Amino acid sequence: MSIWQKEVVLPVFPRGYHLIDHILQEHLVDVPKFGLLHLFLKHSSAALSINENADPSVRFDLERSIDLLVPENQKHFTHTYEGSDDMPAHIKCSLLGASLQIPITNGAPNLGTWQGIYLCEFRNNAKARTLVLSIVY
Amino acid sequence: MSIWQKEVVLPVFPRGYHLIDHILQEHLVDVPKFGLLHLFLKHSSAALSINENADPSVRFDLERSIDLLVPENQKHFTHTYEGSDDMPAHIKCSLLGASLQIPITNGAPNLGTWQGIYLCEFRNNAKARTLVLSIVY
Amino acid sequence: MSIWQKEVVLPVFPRGYHLIDHILQEHLVDVPKFGLLHLFLKHSSAALSINENADPSVRFDLERSIDLLVPENQKHFTHTYEGSDDMPAHIKCSLLGASLQIPITNGAPNLGTWQGIYLCEFRNNAKARTLVLSIVY
Repeated sequence: MSIWQKEVVLPVFPRGYHLIDHILQEHLVDVPKFGLLHLFLKHSSAALSINENADPSVRFDLERSIDLLVPENQKHFTHTYEGSDDMPAHIKCSLLGASLQIPITNGAPNLGTWQGIYLCEFRNNAKARTLVLSIVY
Repeated sequence: MSIWQKEVVLPVFPRGYHLIDHILQEHLVDVPKFGLLHLFLKHSSAALSINENADPSVRFDLERSIDLLVPENQKHFTHTYEGSDDMPAHIKCSLLGASLQIPITNGAPNLGTWQGIYLCEFRNNAKARTLVLSIVY
Repeated sequence: MSIWQKEVVLPVFPRGYHLIDHILQEHLVDVPKFGLLHLFLKHSSAALSINENADPSVRFDLERSIDLLVPENQKHFTHTYEGSDDMPAHIKCSLLGASLQIPITNGAPNLGTWQGIYLCEFRNNAKARTLVLSIVY
Protein backbone atom coordinates (compact mmCIF):
# COMPACT_ATOMS: atom_id res chain seq x y z
CA MET A 1 0.00 0.00 0.00
CA SER A 2 0.87 3.60 -0.21
CA ILE A 3 -0.14 6.65 1.73
CA TRP A 4 -0.08 10.12 0.22
CA GLN A 5 -0.36 12.96 2.71
CA LYS A 6 -0.35 16.74 2.58
CA GLU A 7 -1.00 19.43 5.18
CA VAL A 8 -2.88 22.39 3.75
CA VAL A 9 -3.50 25.80 5.33
CA LEU A 10 -6.93 26.98 4.21
CA PRO A 11 -7.72 30.63 3.52
CA VAL A 12 -9.34 32.48 6.43
CA PHE A 13 -13.11 32.06 6.27
CA PRO A 14 -15.76 34.14 8.04
CA ARG A 15 -18.22 32.41 10.35
CA GLY A 16 -20.47 30.26 8.17
CA TYR A 17 -20.60 27.16 5.99
CA HIS A 18 -18.28 27.25 2.97
CA LEU A 19 -17.80 24.90 0.03
CA ILE A 20 -14.10 23.97 -0.23
CA ASP A 21 -14.15 21.42 -3.06
CA HIS A 22 -12.29 23.80 -5.42
CA ILE A 23 -9.52 24.31 -2.85
CA LEU A 24 -9.13 20.58 -2.31
CA GLN A 25 -8.97 19.95 -6.05
CA GLU A 26 -5.92 22.20 -6.33
CA HIS A 27 -4.08 19.90 -3.94
CA LEU A 28 -5.40 16.58 -5.23
CA VAL A 29 -3.17 16.01 -8.24
CA ASP A 30 -2.05 12.55 -9.37
CA VAL A 31 -4.96 10.93 -7.54
CA PRO A 32 -4.79 7.10 -7.68
CA LYS A 33 -7.48 5.16 -9.57
CA PHE A 34 -8.97 3.61 -6.42
CA GLY A 35 -8.49 4.54 -2.78
CA LEU A 36 -9.88 6.39 0.19
CA LEU A 37 -9.47 10.12 0.76
CA HIS A 38 -9.37 11.29 4.36
CA LEU A 39 -9.74 14.94 5.41
CA PHE A 40 -8.82 15.92 8.94
CA LEU A 41 -9.26 19.37 10.44
CA LYS A 42 -6.78 20.07 13.25
CA HIS A 43 -9.17 22.23 15.26
CA SER A 44 -11.94 21.90 17.84
CA SER A 45 -14.12 24.92 17.03
CA ALA A 46 -14.80 24.27 13.34
CA ALA A 47 -15.95 21.17 11.47
CA LEU A 48 -16.13 19.41 8.13
CA SER A 49 -19.38 18.24 6.62
CA ILE A 50 -20.68 16.91 3.32
CA ASN A 51 -23.98 18.36 2.18
CA GLU A 52 -25.84 19.98 -0.71
CA ASN A 53 -23.49 21.69 -3.15
CA ALA A 54 -25.79 23.72 -5.38
CA ASP A 55 -28.11 26.09 -3.55
CA PRO A 56 -26.49 28.60 -1.16
CA SER A 57 -29.77 28.76 0.77
CA VAL A 58 -29.06 25.27 2.12
CA ARG A 59 -25.75 26.41 3.60
CA PHE A 60 -27.43 29.50 5.04
CA ASP A 61 -30.21 27.46 6.64
CA LEU A 62 -27.82 24.80 7.92
CA GLU A 63 -25.78 27.42 9.76
CA ARG A 64 -28.84 29.21 11.09
CA SER A 65 -30.27 25.91 12.29
CA ILE A 66 -27.20 24.80 14.22
CA ASP A 67 -27.01 28.27 15.77
CA LEU A 68 -30.57 27.80 17.02
CA LEU A 69 -29.87 24.24 18.16
CA VAL A 70 -26.76 25.34 20.08
CA PRO A 71 -27.42 28.91 21.23
CA GLU A 72 -24.76 31.21 22.64
CA ASN A 73 -24.77 32.55 26.20
CA GLN A 74 -26.44 29.50 27.73
CA LYS A 75 -26.69 30.01 31.46
CA HIS A 76 -25.02 26.72 32.32
CA PHE A 77 -21.79 27.45 30.39
CA THR A 78 -18.72 27.66 32.60
CA HIS A 79 -16.15 27.91 29.78
CA THR A 80 -16.87 31.50 28.78
CA TYR A 81 -13.61 33.47 28.83
CA GLU A 82 -12.91 33.05 25.08
CA GLY A 83 -16.16 34.73 24.05
CA SER A 84 -19.79 33.80 23.58
CA ASP A 85 -19.09 31.97 20.30
CA ASP A 86 -16.42 29.69 21.78
CA MET A 87 -18.27 27.04 23.81
CA PRO A 88 -21.05 26.71 21.15
CA ALA A 89 -18.28 26.20 18.57
CA HIS A 90 -16.87 23.27 20.57
CA ILE A 91 -20.34 21.70 20.86
CA LYS A 92 -21.02 22.09 17.12
CA CYS A 93 -17.59 20.60 16.34
CA SER A 94 -18.44 17.44 18.29
CA LEU A 95 -21.87 17.18 16.64
CA LEU A 96 -20.55 17.50 13.06
CA GLY A 97 -17.05 16.09 13.44
CA ALA A 98 -13.66 17.22 12.24
CA SER A 99 -12.96 14.57 9.64
CA LEU A 100 -14.40 13.06 6.47
CA GLN A 101 -13.64 9.93 4.49
CA ILE A 102 -14.55 9.74 0.81
CA PRO A 103 -14.01 6.86 -1.65
CA ILE A 104 -11.80 7.52 -4.66
CA THR A 105 -13.13 5.82 -7.79
CA ASN A 106 -11.67 6.09 -11.27
CA GLY A 107 -9.23 8.76 -10.18
CA ALA A 108 -11.58 11.18 -8.42
CA PRO A 109 -13.49 11.58 -5.14
CA ASN A 110 -16.71 9.60 -5.67
CA LEU A 111 -19.18 12.16 -4.34
CA GLY A 112 -22.85 12.13 -5.26
CA THR A 113 -24.15 14.66 -7.78
CA TRP A 114 -25.40 16.97 -5.05
CA GLN A 115 -22.64 16.48 -2.49
CA GLY A 116 -20.08 19.13 -1.70
CA ILE A 117 -17.48 19.42 1.04
CA TYR A 118 -18.01 22.19 3.60
CA LEU A 119 -15.74 23.89 6.04
CA CYS A 120 -18.09 24.88 8.86
CA GLU A 121 -16.51 27.85 10.62
CA PHE A 122 -18.12 28.42 14.01
CA ARG A 123 -15.92 31.23 15.37
CA ASN A 124 -16.53 34.92 14.67
CA ASN A 125 -12.87 35.73 14.06
CA ALA A 126 -11.07 32.51 13.27
CA LYS A 127 -7.52 32.34 11.96
CA ALA A 128 -6.56 30.12 9.04
CA ARG A 129 -7.50 26.47 9.63
CA THR A 130 -5.16 23.57 8.88
CA LEU A 131 -6.34 20.45 7.10
CA VAL A 132 -4.50 17.15 6.66
CA LEU A 133 -5.29 15.35 3.40
CA SER A 134 -4.46 11.65 3.26
CA ILE A 135 -5.06 9.10 0.52
CA VAL A 136 -4.61 5.39 1.10
CA TYR A 137 -4.38 3.41 -2.11
CA MET B 1 -2.17 -2.88 -0.26
CA SER B 2 -5.35 -3.52 -2.02
CA ILE B 3 -8.64 -1.70 -2.32
CA TRP B 4 -11.87 -3.51 -3.03
CA GLN B 5 -14.77 -1.30 -4.04
CA LYS B 6 -18.37 -1.79 -5.08
CA GLU B 7 -21.22 0.61 -5.73
CA VAL B 8 -24.55 -0.72 -4.50
CA VAL B 9 -28.05 0.61 -5.16
CA LEU B 10 -30.13 0.01 -2.07
CA PRO B 11 -33.82 -0.87 -2.22
CA VAL B 12 -36.17 2.09 -1.77
CA PHE B 13 -36.87 2.63 1.92
CA PRO B 14 -39.69 4.64 3.50
CA ARG B 15 -38.84 7.50 5.82
CA GLY B 16 -37.36 5.97 8.98
CA TYR B 17 -34.35 4.14 10.39
CA HIS B 18 -33.64 0.77 8.77
CA LEU B 19 -31.14 -1.99 9.56
CA ILE B 20 -29.17 -2.79 6.39
CA ASP B 21 -26.64 -5.34 7.70
CA HIS B 22 -28.27 -8.18 5.76
CA ILE B 23 -28.05 -6.21 2.51
CA LEU B 24 -24.39 -5.39 3.08
CA GLN B 25 -23.60 -9.03 3.83
CA GLU B 26 -24.85 -10.06 0.39
CA HIS B 27 -22.21 -7.83 -1.18
CA LEU B 28 -19.38 -8.55 1.23
CA VAL B 29 -18.06 -11.82 -0.11
CA ASP B 30 -14.38 -12.80 0.03
CA VAL B 31 -13.77 -10.36 2.86
CA PRO B 32 -10.06 -10.16 3.79
CA LYS B 33 -8.90 -11.35 7.21
CA PHE B 34 -7.97 -7.85 8.44
CA GLY B 35 -8.87 -4.47 7.01
CA LEU B 36 -11.16 -1.48 7.22
CA LEU B 37 -14.62 -1.34 5.70
CA HIS B 38 -15.85 2.06 4.57
CA LEU B 39 -19.48 2.81 3.70
CA PHE B 40 -20.31 6.02 1.86
CA LEU B 41 -23.79 7.25 1.02
CA LYS B 42 -23.83 9.49 -2.06
CA HIS B 43 -26.68 11.69 -0.80
CA SER B 44 -27.26 14.72 1.39
CA SER B 45 -30.76 14.03 2.75
CA ALA B 46 -30.20 10.59 4.29
CA ALA B 47 -27.49 9.27 6.62
CA LEU B 48 -25.73 6.18 7.92
CA SER B 49 -25.49 5.39 11.60
CA ILE B 50 -24.47 2.52 13.84
CA ASN B 51 -26.78 1.86 16.76
CA GLU B 52 -28.74 -0.80 18.64
CA ASN B 53 -29.59 -3.78 16.43
CA ALA B 54 -32.12 -5.75 18.47
CA ASP B 55 -35.13 -3.78 19.64
CA PRO B 56 -37.16 -1.97 16.94
CA SER B 57 -38.35 0.50 19.60
CA VAL B 58 -34.85 2.03 19.63
CA ARG B 59 -35.04 2.79 15.91
CA PHE B 60 -38.53 4.19 16.36
CA ASP B 61 -37.47 6.44 19.22
CA LEU B 62 -34.28 7.54 17.44
CA GLU B 63 -36.26 8.74 14.44
CA ARG B 64 -38.91 10.41 16.56
CA SER B 65 -36.21 12.14 18.59
CA ILE B 66 -34.34 13.60 15.64
CA ASP B 67 -37.68 14.76 14.19
CA LEU B 68 -38.30 16.65 17.42
CA LEU B 69 -34.74 17.98 17.54
CA VAL B 70 -34.96 19.22 13.93
CA PRO B 71 -38.62 20.12 13.31
CA GLU B 72 -40.10 20.81 9.90
CA ASN B 73 -41.53 24.18 8.85
CA GLN B 74 -39.16 26.25 10.98
CA LYS B 75 -39.86 29.92 10.35
CA HIS B 76 -36.28 30.77 9.53
CA PHE B 77 -35.95 28.24 6.65
CA THR B 78 -35.34 29.86 3.26
CA HIS B 79 -34.73 26.59 1.33
CA THR B 80 -38.33 25.41 1.22
CA TYR B 81 -39.25 24.69 -2.39
CA GLU B 82 -38.49 20.95 -2.22
CA GLY B 83 -41.01 20.36 0.56
CA SER B 84 -41.17 20.60 4.33
CA ASP B 85 -39.08 17.44 4.82
CA ASP B 86 -36.17 18.63 2.65
CA MET B 87 -34.27 21.19 4.74
CA PRO B 88 -34.66 19.13 7.95
CA ALA B 89 -33.26 16.15 5.99
CA HIS B 90 -30.12 18.15 5.11
CA ILE B 91 -29.65 19.18 8.74
CA LYS B 92 -30.07 15.61 10.00
CA CYS B 93 -27.63 14.38 7.35
CA SER B 94 -24.92 16.74 8.65
CA LEU B 95 -25.62 15.74 12.26
CA LEU B 96 -25.39 11.98 11.65
CA GLY B 97 -23.05 11.87 8.68
CA ALA B 98 -23.08 9.99 5.40
CA SER B 99 -20.24 7.55 6.00
CA LEU B 100 -19.09 4.85 8.39
CA GLN B 101 -15.81 3.07 8.94
CA ILE B 102 -15.73 -0.36 10.57
CA PRO B 103 -12.73 -2.59 11.34
CA ILE B 104 -12.60 -6.00 9.68
CA THR B 105 -11.24 -8.66 12.01
CA ASN B 106 -10.92 -12.37 11.24
CA GLY B 107 -12.81 -11.97 7.99
CA ALA B 108 -15.88 -10.06 9.19
CA PRO B 109 -16.95 -6.55 10.22
CA ASN B 110 -15.97 -6.31 13.90
CA LEU B 111 -19.19 -4.81 15.26
CA GLY B 112 -20.18 -5.05 18.90
CA THR B 113 -22.88 -7.53 19.90
CA TRP B 114 -25.57 -4.85 19.92
CA GLN B 115 -24.40 -2.79 16.95
CA GLY B 116 -26.23 -2.73 13.64
CA ILE B 117 -25.85 -0.52 10.58
CA TYR B 118 -28.75 1.82 9.80
CA LEU B 119 -29.81 3.66 6.72
CA CYS B 120 -31.56 6.72 8.10
CA GLU B 121 -34.01 7.90 5.44
CA PHE B 122 -35.16 11.44 6.14
CA ARG B 123 -37.26 12.13 3.01
CA ASN B 124 -40.94 11.20 2.71
CA ASN B 125 -40.63 9.88 -0.85
CA ALA B 126 -36.99 9.09 -1.50
CA LYS B 127 -35.74 7.21 -4.52
CA ALA B 128 -33.22 4.38 -4.24
CA ARG B 129 -30.03 5.47 -2.46
CA THR B 130 -26.55 4.59 -3.70
CA LEU B 131 -23.84 3.36 -1.37
CA VAL B 132 -20.13 2.91 -2.10
CA LEU B 133 -18.52 0.02 -0.21
CA SER B 134 -14.73 0.08 0.06
CA ILE B 135 -12.38 -2.25 1.88
CA VAL B 136 -8.71 -1.43 2.38
CA TYR B 137 -6.64 -4.45 3.32
CA MET C 1 -0.05 -2.35 2.62
CA SER C 2 -0.27 -3.51 6.14
CA ILE C 3 -2.95 -3.38 8.78
CA TRP C 4 -2.13 -3.34 12.46
CA GLN C 5 -5.04 -4.03 14.78
CA LYS C 6 -5.59 -4.36 18.51
CA GLU C 7 -8.70 -4.72 20.64
CA VAL C 8 -8.44 -2.81 23.92
CA VAL C 9 -10.69 -2.97 26.97
CA LEU C 10 -10.85 0.51 28.48
CA PRO C 11 -11.07 1.09 32.21
CA VAL C 12 -14.60 1.67 33.52
CA PHE C 13 -15.47 5.37 33.31
CA PRO C 14 -18.26 7.21 35.09
CA ARG C 15 -20.84 9.08 33.03
CA GLY C 16 -19.08 12.04 31.45
CA TYR C 17 -16.51 13.06 28.85
CA HIS C 18 -13.02 11.66 29.43
CA LEU C 19 -9.68 12.25 27.70
CA ILE C 20 -8.20 8.88 26.70
CA ASP C 21 -5.10 9.97 24.76
CA HIS C 22 -2.79 8.62 27.46
CA ILE C 23 -4.47 5.21 27.36
CA LEU C 24 -4.22 5.03 23.58
CA GLN C 25 -0.54 5.98 23.70
CA GLU C 26 0.21 2.92 25.83
CA HIS C 27 -1.09 0.71 23.04
CA LEU C 28 0.33 2.65 20.09
CA VAL C 29 3.91 1.40 20.04
CA ASP C 30 5.89 0.96 16.81
CA VAL C 31 3.63 3.41 14.99
CA PRO C 32 4.49 3.65 11.27
CA LYS C 33 5.82 6.92 9.85
CA PHE C 34 2.69 7.62 7.76
CA GLY C 35 -0.75 6.06 7.95
CA LEU C 36 -4.27 6.38 9.22
CA LEU C 37 -5.35 5.49 12.74
CA HIS C 38 -8.91 4.27 13.19
CA LEU C 39 -10.65 3.99 16.56
CA PHE C 40 -13.89 2.04 16.80
CA LEU C 41 -16.05 1.73 19.89
CA LYS C 42 -18.07 -1.50 19.93
CA HIS C 43 -21.05 0.03 21.75
CA SER C 44 -24.21 1.99 21.02
CA SER C 45 -24.62 4.01 24.22
CA ALA C 46 -21.23 5.75 24.35
CA ALA C 47 -19.27 7.67 21.72
CA LEU C 48 -15.86 8.91 20.67
CA SER C 49 -15.17 12.56 19.94
CA ILE C 50 -12.23 14.84 19.33
CA ASN C 51 -12.38 18.18 21.11
CA GLU C 52 -10.48 20.63 23.31
CA ASN C 53 -7.80 18.90 25.39
CA ALA C 54 -6.74 21.52 27.92
CA ASP C 55 -9.54 23.01 29.97
CA PRO C 56 -11.75 20.55 31.91
CA SER C 57 -14.56 23.14 31.81
CA VAL C 58 -15.01 22.41 28.08
CA ARG C 59 -15.64 18.71 28.79
CA PHE C 60 -18.01 19.64 31.60
CA ASP C 61 -19.97 22.05 29.40
CA LEU C 62 -20.02 19.64 26.45
CA GLU C 63 -21.62 16.93 28.56
CA ARG C 64 -24.08 19.33 30.19
CA SER C 65 -25.03 20.67 26.77
CA ILE C 66 -25.76 17.31 25.19
CA ASP C 67 -27.77 16.37 28.30
CA LEU C 68 -29.91 19.47 27.71
CA LEU C 69 -30.16 18.82 23.97
CA VAL C 70 -31.24 15.22 24.55
CA PRO C 71 -33.13 15.18 27.85
CA GLU C 72 -34.10 12.03 29.74
CA ASN C 73 -37.69 10.93 30.34
CA GLN C 74 -39.07 12.40 27.12
CA LYS C 75 -42.76 11.57 26.89
CA HIS C 76 -42.48 10.02 23.44
CA PHE C 77 -39.87 7.39 24.40
CA THR C 78 -41.09 3.82 24.06
CA HIS C 79 -37.72 2.13 24.75
CA THR C 80 -37.63 2.76 28.49
CA TYR C 81 -37.06 -0.56 30.28
CA GLU C 82 -33.27 -0.15 30.56
CA GLY C 83 -33.56 3.07 32.55
CA SER C 84 -33.99 6.77 31.88
CA ASP C 85 -30.39 7.18 30.70
CA ASP C 86 -30.60 4.43 28.07
CA MET C 87 -32.58 5.89 25.16
CA PRO C 88 -30.84 9.31 25.46
CA ALA C 89 -27.51 7.43 25.35
CA HIS C 90 -28.47 5.81 22.03
CA ILE C 91 -29.47 9.20 20.58
CA LYS C 92 -26.22 10.84 21.71
CA CYS C 93 -24.23 7.93 20.28
CA SER C 94 -25.75 8.50 16.82
CA LEU C 95 -25.15 12.25 17.04
CA LEU C 96 -21.46 11.97 18.00
CA GLY C 97 -20.55 8.65 16.41
CA ALA C 98 -18.62 5.63 17.61
CA SER C 99 -15.50 5.93 15.50
CA LEU C 100 -12.67 8.33 14.70
CA GLN C 101 -10.03 8.45 11.99
CA ILE C 102 -6.80 10.36 12.56
CA PRO C 103 -3.83 10.80 10.21
CA ILE C 104 -0.47 9.47 11.36
CA THR C 105 2.37 11.77 10.35
CA ASN C 106 6.03 11.32 11.25
CA GLY C 107 5.23 8.42 13.54
CA ALA C 108 2.48 9.96 15.66
CA PRO C 109 -1.23 10.83 15.49
CA ASN C 110 -1.32 14.24 13.79
CA LEU C 111 -3.74 15.99 16.13
CA GLY C 112 -3.95 19.77 16.42
CA THR C 113 -2.40 21.47 19.45
CA TRP C 114 -5.75 21.69 21.22
CA GLN C 115 -7.26 18.38 20.13
CA GLY C 116 -7.71 15.46 22.48
CA ILE C 117 -9.59 12.18 22.11
CA TYR C 118 -12.63 11.71 24.34
CA LEU C 119 -14.57 8.70 25.44
CA CYS C 120 -18.09 10.08 25.96
CA GLU C 121 -19.81 7.79 28.46
CA PHE C 122 -23.57 8.35 28.42
CA ARG C 123 -24.69 5.59 30.81
CA ASN C 124 -24.87 6.03 34.58
CA ASN C 125 -23.38 2.63 35.37
CA ALA C 126 -21.54 1.41 32.30
CA LYS C 127 -19.26 -1.58 32.23
CA ALA C 128 -15.83 -1.49 30.60
CA ARG C 129 -16.03 -0.41 26.94
CA THR C 130 -14.12 -2.16 24.16
CA LEU C 131 -12.25 -0.23 21.49
CA VAL C 132 -10.71 -1.57 18.28
CA LEU C 133 -7.55 0.26 17.19
CA SER C 134 -6.52 -0.15 13.56
CA ILE C 135 -3.67 1.43 11.63
CA VAL C 136 -3.42 1.20 7.85
CA TYR C 137 0.03 2.05 6.55
